[in-house]
Amino acid sequence: MTTTKVRPLNDRVLVKRMSEEEKTAGGLFIPDSAKEKPAKGVVISAGPGKVDDNGKRTPLEVKAGDKVLFGKYSGTEIKLDGEEHMILREDEILAILEA
Amino acid sequence: MTTTKVRPLNDRVLVKRMSEEEKTAGGLFIPDSAKEKPAKGVVISAGPGKVDDNGKRTPLEVKAGDKVLFGKYSGTEIKLDGEEHMILREDEILAILEA
Amino acid sequence: MTTTKVRPLNDRVLVKRMSEEEKTAGGLFIPDSAKEKPAKGVVISAGPGKVDDNGKRTPLEVKAGDKVLFGKYSGTEIKLDGEEHMILREDEILAILEA
Amino acid sequence: MTTTKVRPLNDRVLVKRMSEEEKTAGGLFIPDSAKEKPAKGVVISAGPGKVDDNGKRTPLEVKAGDKVLFGKYSGTEIKLDGEEHMILREDEILAILEA
Amino acid sequence: MTTTKVRPLNDRVLVKRMSEEEKTAGGLFIPDSAKEKPAKGVVISAGPGKVDDNGKRTPLEVKAGDKVLFGKYSGTEIKLDGEEHMILREDEILAILEA
Amino acid sequence: MTTTKVRPLNDRVLVKRMSEEEKTAGGLFIPDSAKEKPAKGVVISAGPGKVDDNGKRTPLEVKAGDKVLFGKYSGTEIKLDGEEHMILREDEILAILEA
Amino acid sequence: MTTTKVRPLNDRVLVKRMSEEEKTAGGLFIPDSAKEKPAKGVVISAGPGKVDDNGKRTPLEVKAGDKVLFGKYSGTEIKLDGEEHMILREDEILAILEA
Repeated sequence: MTTTKVRPLNDRVLVKRMSEEEKTAGGLFIPDSAKEKPAKGVVISAGPGKVDDNGKRTPLEVKAGDKVLFGKYSGTEIKLDGEEHMILREDEILAILEA
Repeated sequence: MTTTKVRPLNDRVLVKRMSEEEKTAGGLFIPDSAKEKPAKGVVISAGPGKVDDNGKRTPLEVKAGDKVLFGKYSGTEIKLDGEEHMILREDEILAILEA
Repeated sequence: MTTTKVRPLNDRVLVKRMSEEEKTAGGLFIPDSAKEKPAKGVVISAGPGKVDDNGKRTPLEVKAGDKVLFGKYSGTEIKLDGEEHMILREDEILAILEA
Repeated sequence: MTTTKVRPLNDRVLVKRMSEEEKTAGGLFIPDSAKEKPAKGVVISAGPGKVDDNGKRTPLEVKAGDKVLFGKYSGTEIKLDGEEHMILREDEILAILEA
Repeated sequence: MTTTKVRPLNDRVLVKRMSEEEKTAGGLFIPDSAKEKPAKGVVISAGPGKVDDNGKRTPLEVKAGDKVLFGKYSGTEIKLDGEEHMILREDEILAILEA
Repeated sequence: MTTTKVRPLNDRVLVKRMSEEEKTAGGLFIPDSAKEKPAKGVVISAGPGKVDDNGKRTPLEVKAGDKVLFGKYSGTEIKLDGEEHMILREDEILAILEA
Repeated sequence: MTTTKVRPLNDRVLVKRMSEEEKTAGGLFIPDSAKEKPAKGVVISAGPGKVDDNGKRTPLEVKAGDKVLFGKYSGTEIKLDGEEHMILREDEILAILEA
């Protein structure tokens, strides 16, 4: 349980990392090559969205509970209640995984 | 069959790589030179499009089933059900191949 | 007590650094790895916001009293009344911590 | 004859390279110096144009059949039916040659 | 007394440097560390503001007489009547100091 | 006489280089120093202008016949009917020379 | 007397350099330090201004006759009638000097 609530700003998203060994139901597998490979996580909370040129916020596409892929070298890592989390910009999230 | 559905965000596109030996009907052939050569793939799913300055999404030009050319060093590779896939931004897709 | 008042301009924010040993109630802990790790602080004062393309200011999302996470190498440090402070752009703040 | 149709996306253009020895009627000649020299080609197909900030496409200025000059190091080369082609952004095309 | 009047253009600001030894009433002190530290100065004159995309000027937030903090490596230095001054863009000014 | 007509695209301009020895009537002279020095030429043809964010073209300021100064390392050189020409973006042209 | 008229384009400005020994009435003096120091000149002619996103020109703030400060490494130098001149963008001009 996360007692400290981390509320991401603007277009940032808090993601709890999933271990690389965890295979999803459908058999997603991260290849063992030299190229950059995505990491997996679950969205814990998402910011209110970026403010556009007219002063309005565009809500983010991801929401709490979404399983997401993100670039391995993206974002900033923090530990919350002993578990690895990431703070990313939504633009660094590649895709949502659906079971 | 892809059991895990990967839903790309914004202007991102999921592409299944076609092997470089596969020649299309019309004889597309990737030359053997030092210059960057495009890779081929088939679009599995496409994001909803990027949000413009007025908060509206512009739908992508590519759709599931399109055969596409993309820069060899573009995007992020992932393995889905044992097969090589790429997540690209639409802007990294050069052209659609039509038979 | 801060006698000299520092009023940040535009989208800048004055933050008093919290020591890295201080653990928040919920157990936030900054991991000991090679990756960039966020620092913590409390907002002392926030600028009036950036001027957009139409000459209007978008107010900032953070306000005095907010506990915030920010990139370790972000901003400019100043000492006020003997204590370490930072002047950051709001965009360099990753998230607000809520107890 | 090109059996595989390559449909360029957005502001991209498919160009069939003309050999550098081919001199146009009017005597265009590419000088033998150290500076970057343009290459020549004929437009095979042009994309529908880029989407602007209001979601509208601006049609391209070049069209199939146009003879064009482009920077030697621009674009991505592909071989179609045994002949060298380039995929370029319109902005990489310098000029249209008229006989 | 400054006899030569220096009128900054657009979003530029003329600032007279305050010596680093001068401590403000409230005890502002610039720490002795390796990180970039701000410098202090007093605004002598401010430009009329930047022209936005609609051709209107947004007036600057700082005005003559303001005590300001700015990045140590920002701007261009000039000597006026024997004293060190800086010409800065407003965006290089971090905060206004209030007594 | 230029038989091959070169029609520059968008904001590009075709310029015929003038030799550096040619002094204009008013005595323009390019100094012999280490700093970048402009080159001279006469505009042969100018593109229709760049398309702005609203899809309209802004006509160029230069026109055929104008004598212009441009940065020595700007643009792409081509030979037309045996004479050195340049293709430049209008923004690379510094000034128009008037006799 | 300048016989060749140089008409700067868009936001460019033609400036005649003033020698560094020349002190203005008010005693402006350029310090002898390692930091970049501004140079001085008098505006000979100014362009009509930059075209904004709506196709309108914003007139420049400087005009012929203004004494200006500009970054030492800014612009392109040309010799006109034996005297050193610079072609600068207005944005490279730091301030106007008033006697």
